[in-house]
Amino acid sequence: MASIKPLGDRVVVQPLEADEKTESGLYIPDSAQEKPQKGTVVAIGPGRVENGTKVDMTVSEGDEVLYGKYAGTEVTLDGGDFLIMRESDIFGVIEG
Amino acid sequence: MASIKPLGDRVVVQPLEADEKTESGLYIPDSAQEKPQKGTVVAIGPGRVENGTKVDMTVSEGDEVLYGKYAGTEVTLDGGDFLIMRESDIFGVIEG
Amino acid sequence: MASIKPLGDRVVVQPLEADEKTESGLYIPDSAQEKPQKGTVVAIGPGRVENGTKVDMTVSEGDEVLYGKYAGTEVTLDGGDFLIMRESDIFGVIEG
Amino acid sequence: MASIKPLGDRVVVQPLEADEKTESGLYIPDSAQEKPQKGTVVAIGPGRVENGTKVDMTVSEGDEVLYGKYAGTEVTLDGGDFLIMRESDIFGVIEG
Amino acid sequence: MASIKPLGDRVVVQPLEADEKTESGLYIPDSAQEKPQKGTVVAIGPGRVENGTKVDMTVSEGDEVLYGKYAGTEVTLDGGDFLIMRESDIFGVIEG
Amino acid sequence: MASIKPLGDRVVVQPLEADEKTESGLYIPDSAQEKPQKGTVVAIGPGRVENGTKVDMTVSEGDEVLYGKYAGTEVTLDGGDFLIMRESDIFGVIEG
Amino acid sequence: MASIKPLGDRVVVQPLEADEKTESGLYIPDSAQEKPQKGTVVAIGPGRVENGTKVDMTVSEGDEVLYGKYAGTEVTLDGGDFLIMRESDIFGVIEG
Repeated sequence: MASIKPLGDRVVVQPLEADEKTESGLYIPDSAQEKPQKGTVVAIGPGRVENGTKVDMTVSEGDEVLYGKYAGTEVTLDGGDFLIMRESDIFGVIEG
Repeated sequence: MASIKPLGDRVVVQPLEADEKTESGLYIPDSAQEKPQKGTVVAIGPGRVENGTKVDMTVSEGDEVLYGKYAGTEVTLDGGDFLIMRESDIFGVIEG
Repeated sequence: MASIKPLGDRVVVQPLEADEKTESGLYIPDSAQEKPQKGTVVAIGPGRVENGTKVDMTVSEGDEVLYGKYAGTEVTLDGGDFLIMRESDIFGVIEG
Repeated sequence: MASIKPLGDRVVVQPLEADEKTESGLYIPDSAQEKPQKGTVVAIGPGRVENGTKVDMTVSEGDEVLYGKYAGTEVTLDGGDFLIMRESDIFGVIEG
Repeated sequence: MASIKPLGDRVVVQPLEADEKTESGLYIPDSAQEKPQKGTVVAIGPGRVENGTKVDMTVSEGDEVLYGKYAGTEVTLDGGDFLIMRESDIFGVIEG
Repeated sequence: MASIKPLGDRVVVQPLEADEKTESGLYIPDSAQEKPQKGTVVAIGPGRVENGTKVDMTVSEGDEVLYGKYAGTEVTLDGGDFLIMRESDIFGVIEG
Repeated sequence: MASIKPLGDRVVVQPLEADEKTESGLYIPDSAQEKPQKGTVVAIGPGRVENGTKVDMTVSEGDEVLYGKYAGTEVTLDGGDFLIMRESDIFGVIEG
């Protein structure tokens, strides 16, 4: 599978699958599903350079993270649909 | 319960419950309730880095804070609905 | 009474009461009253930090100040309605 | 008369009176009068602080100045209607 | 005649007169005339201060300059209609 | 063939050809084709200068890169249609 | 012929003539012609000053350059129609 190495402070996030059926078993079309705001970090960039100083990344691959409803850009890679966003679009890391 | 560790200068705030009934006992639908502007800080980030210098957080977990009507982003965690906002969206700490 | 300790360079201002009656004694509803642009500073923050340097506040508690028609955010505390604004929203201090 | 001490690099300007009558003696209502762009500086702030350095004011009280049609905010003080603007809103000083 | 001393990096420009007649001698009303983009510098400010350093002016009084269609603000002084603009609104100096 | 030497931190990207036929062999007009977000870097600039310091480029000629749907400006050179974008418009480099 | 000496980091570009006839010989009115994005640099400014440091120009007079569809401002000089733009509006230099 082809993978992507993000530039700067970007991260690739695999969104958690939204359940496509309601509890009663009805199929929900895409437009009616609430877009998930949780996902797993699958790749991180080397970090951005600010005024000549490298700023290290805070999140790591494998972290489950929370992000805004409109964060990032959707890209389609071999392994499915992903979001590429800047680390600053990530609100926090989900623990426990 | 899963919890969230905010990144940078973000804080997780649990909004104070808006009373869902009027004094006379009538139920008020969500859209007619005045959105609360007070809440309790339940998690804080490590602080942001500005030009290579760490800027410490001013608020602490447990602080009752006041914030703008449109501050932050709503997120749903196990423990209910929360707001994630930057510390700069907080107006002040309520005392006494 | 609960009070608020503003963060950064914010100040809490108690607006001067607008006269709710005309000189002839007619009651004026809120929407027809000219919003006051004068108020009294009742709480000030510690000042903001700019590039690592603390910038002291210029106004003090008790100062009568002048501010723009749309300055600040209205908040309701125990003691009534107040405005929280940044010091930079204050035009000047009224003297004499 | 109460006066105002401007904060930062703000100045209080007393606009020149617009003639309220045409040459033929007709009264002109406010909305039809061309808003004056000239006025007299009646109070100046201490100057702004930029990166820790004080920037002195360029205009002085008594200067007749030229400013943009939409510069400043109108305030009503005891002595009449004034404009509070930043010094950067002033185009220049009228001489001679 | 009253003159104006511009503040900062502003310049006073006297626009070149647009010909008010077509070649065939017809009068052209103001709204149909192409606004001139050339003019003569009649006054310059002392230059702006950037981070504590004085930045000298590049144009001089008497220079014939080219500027954008919407540059500057029109002001009326004793000697006619002028434009006050920042030096950065000037594209270049016409030579020869 | 004429080539272009980008200025600053710009790169010239040759977009991957979008398939112009569906699997069933139908021709798809341009407007219905999903614009590709992948391409090959064919030229890079020397890098931008930030506060007097040269910031080296991260991508190299030949890199297969991923970019946003609306990144860059389309230009037509001898060799076909290309996109010129800033390196910061590139999300990452596709590997493997 | 009068010429213009650009200020700062501006350049004067002479756009390449758009062919005014189709291959079949039909005349194309201005509005239907694709605006050219190529041109020749005919004058350059001395370069801009950034925080007290002179930033040299990258392009030279005579360079054939590529720029955005909406770059610059059209000016009419003795020698025809030109575009005045900032060097940062130029994508790159066409070689070979």
